[in-house]
This record gives sequence, structure tokens and C-alpha cells, in this order.
Amino acid sequence: MEYSNYLPFWDKLTPAQQEKIADVIVYQKVEKGTRIHDSSADCLGLVAMKYGQLRAYILSEDGREITISRLFEYDVSLLSASCVMPDMQFNVLIEAEKDSGFWSIPACLFKNLVDESLAVSNYSRNLLSSNFSELMWLMEQIMWKSFDKRLAEFLLEESRLEDSAVLKTTHEKIANHMGTAREVVTRMLRYFQSEGMVKLTRGTIELTDLKKLESLQNT
Amino acid sequence: MEYSNYLPFWDKLTPAQQEKIADVIVYQKVEKGTRIHDSSADCLGLVAMKYGQLRAYILSEDGREITISRLFEYDVSLLSASCVMPDMQFNVLIEAEKDSGFWSIPACLFKNLVDESLAVSNYSRNLLSSNFSELMWLMEQIMWKSFDKRLAEFLLEESRLEDSAVLKTTHEKIANHMGTAREVVTRMLRYFQSEGMVKLTRGTIELTDLKKLESLQNT
Repeated sequence: MEYSNYLPFWDKLTPAQQEKIADVIVYQKVEKGTRIHDSSADCLGLVAMKYGQLRAYILSEDGREITISRLFEYDVSLLSASCVMPDMQFNVLIEAEKDSGFWSIPACLFKNLVDESLAVSNYSRNLLSSNFSELMWLMEQIMWKSFDKRLAEFLLEESRLEDSAVLKTTHEKIANHMGTAREVVTRMLRYFQSEGMVKLTRGTIELTDLKKLESLQNT
Repeated sequence: MEYSNYLPFWDKLTPAQQEKIADVIVYQKVEKGTRIHDSSADCLGLVAMKYGQLRAYILSEDGREITISRLFEYDVSLLSASCVMPDMQFNVLIEAEKDSGFWSIPACLFKNLVDESLAVSNYSRNLLSSNFSELMWLMEQIMWKSFDKRLAEFLLEESRLEDSAVLKTTHEKIANHMGTAREVVTRMLRYFQSEGMVKLTRGTIELTDLKKLESLQNT
């Protein structure tokens, strides 16, 4: 029962509840690029990450994206259980940004658990509260931070995640992440290059002056 | 115990829990314009509205605002209980937009309730889920809808709330609501006026062509 380590509320469940989970929990390994959830179709349920990196995002009719959250080892997400959250009317998509492994508890069982177990309900409420706070942070970024700061933050964060100063990505992908147009990203990256903060080549962005990027982030 | 009608989880509480609430619940009447909550100071706790209209918003360092939600009769809010929600690191402010009356359950008691009552925990989780969904909706508005549509929606909504085609407000206030600059609002309102959709006078905006505003909203 390796998965019990990845479910923070496991020890507070009754033996009967633990048994029900054992009967239905699913382990999946997916390759980078796989879309694992689309809430307009099936509802995946609660997701508990073993390894890798997942990205949850919403998509506009004309194809623009906003990244809502990212999941790493030991993270749990309810965004993929949106069908058990009342009034959650958004189509949240989840895709693997790296090869990933995760457990999922189907939505129907999870709904029973959350309705009958105070521990699961409290855990879910706290998780939602975190998601809400993250979303407020994101909105603040979008509304109030100038784009140069946001882009600097994004590049530094990507660099930390990849553990590399050379990012293999396109301006298009960055624009999708940041909910803006490719041209806006290209313009700002060229400005960063002219300031010696990055070096642009086809398909890569090298961060050449981390201190300057960090100081931009903190202004 | 008139307040019991305004607490949707009341009937699911134990007599002891009901008694605790009865001991500490506070009723307040406030005048339009009063700031009733500032989460950097005291934590108001759960709020249950009897009448009036409250607005919850966040504020940037340079004084710009984003309206997060509005509360009307029978609405309950946990945004004023942010200190009992883990990882909620935002300074949410709440002010009365109309003369209002509401009950509040202090944060410390509410925290005990939510931790020990499955009914209260589930209710709070569902409420948070709604807030989260609303915030996603708001972000979608900001990111993906062009400003003319958003402003048309805002004016029509205000008109419905006030039950009047004549809105007594300033461009500055609208800009604060929408997280943008006054100039942006003024420019768009002048465009609306040139199209015959509104008539601008000092301190008022009259909606003169609801159909046209509605069609703009729906494009």
C-alpha cells in the first residue's frame, strides 16, 4: 500500500474507508505531453502525485491558456475532481509536463469519502483554500505587475524547475502560460536580450544574468 | 434566534454547538461606506447577511482594487474568516456598499466548529468551491474578454442591482472595480456615448440603449 504515504488523510480513515480506496485506487504512468484530464469529459477524481510534473490549466474558446497550478511529488489535487465540487463550472485540463506517475481515486468514491469523513472534508477544504489563495496571487500578478516582472519571474521559476539556465521552449508556449500574445513575449525577450539578461537562439532561452533578472522581479 | 435562518448549517449542529454560537454571535448594523473588515487587523469570522450589500475586495500597494465578491441577503461569506483558512495570505477588505445588517461568528469559535462538525466543514468547502469558481470566472473576464464587453456587463449588472438606468458613480470608482485605470474607463464610456449606448453627466451614467449594451455583452 505504497499509496497510503501519498494520501495525507490516510491514517484518519476507518478501516472500511481504507478498504474502499484500496479497491478502486488506480496507478497510472504517463509520458510527457499526455493530457490526463479534461473535465468536460470523464472526471478523474482526486490525484496524488508519485513523481513527475503535471500542469492544470483553463483554455479559452480561441485557444489561449492560463496555468492554474502545477503538481509535483507528494502533491494532491482536487482540480481533477471538479465534478464533485459544486458550482465549479470550469473546464480544467491537466497535462503531463514531464513523464509522471500518479494515483487517482475516482470521483464517485471520493465524493462519498468527503461527505462522510471529517478528516477528508477538512483536508479538502484546506487544499481548496490554498488553491484559492494561489489563484488570487495569479490574478494579482496579471492585474498589477508589469509584464517585465512577470516574465522575469516566469523565466527564473522555469530555470529552477528545469535545474538549468538554458530553457528549451518557444515564445508561443510562454505566451500560452502567461495568457498573452506571442508578440508580447517576443518583444519583452528581445528587450531582456538587449539588456544582457538572456540570450535567444532558435528554440532556447539562456538566462545569462540571473542577478539582473532577480532584481527586476523584486522591484 | 432569528439568525438561525441565516446559517444554512444550523439544523445540523448539536445543541451544544448551537448554544456556543448563541453565546458569541454578534449582530451589527453599518452605514453605507463603512469598512467592516480588514484581514491585516482583526479577523471578523463568518458573516451572514440579513440585508444590504457588502463588497469584498483586494487592494494593491498603489491603491488599485479588484472586487472579489459581493454579498446580499442570506449570503454567507468566509472571506472575512480568512485567518482560519490556511495559506490564505491575502488582505481581503470588506466594505458596505449600502446600509447593511449582518451577523458574525468570531473566527476562533468558527475554527472549532469547522474542525469538529462535518456539516460545517462540508458547507465551508462548498462555499470555498463557489468562491474559487467565481474567481476563475473573474480571471477569465480580465484575461480574455475585451474591455468593451466587460464594461458593458458591469454597467448592466450595476443597473440591475440599483434597479435604475441611471447610475450614480464616478469613472474612478468603476476603474477601481475593474482593476484598471480611470482613463481607460473614461475612454470607453465616451465611445459608448458616441454609439448612443450611454449618456454621461457629472457624477452619473445613464444607460440609454440597453439592447445595444446587451448585444455587446453577448458578442
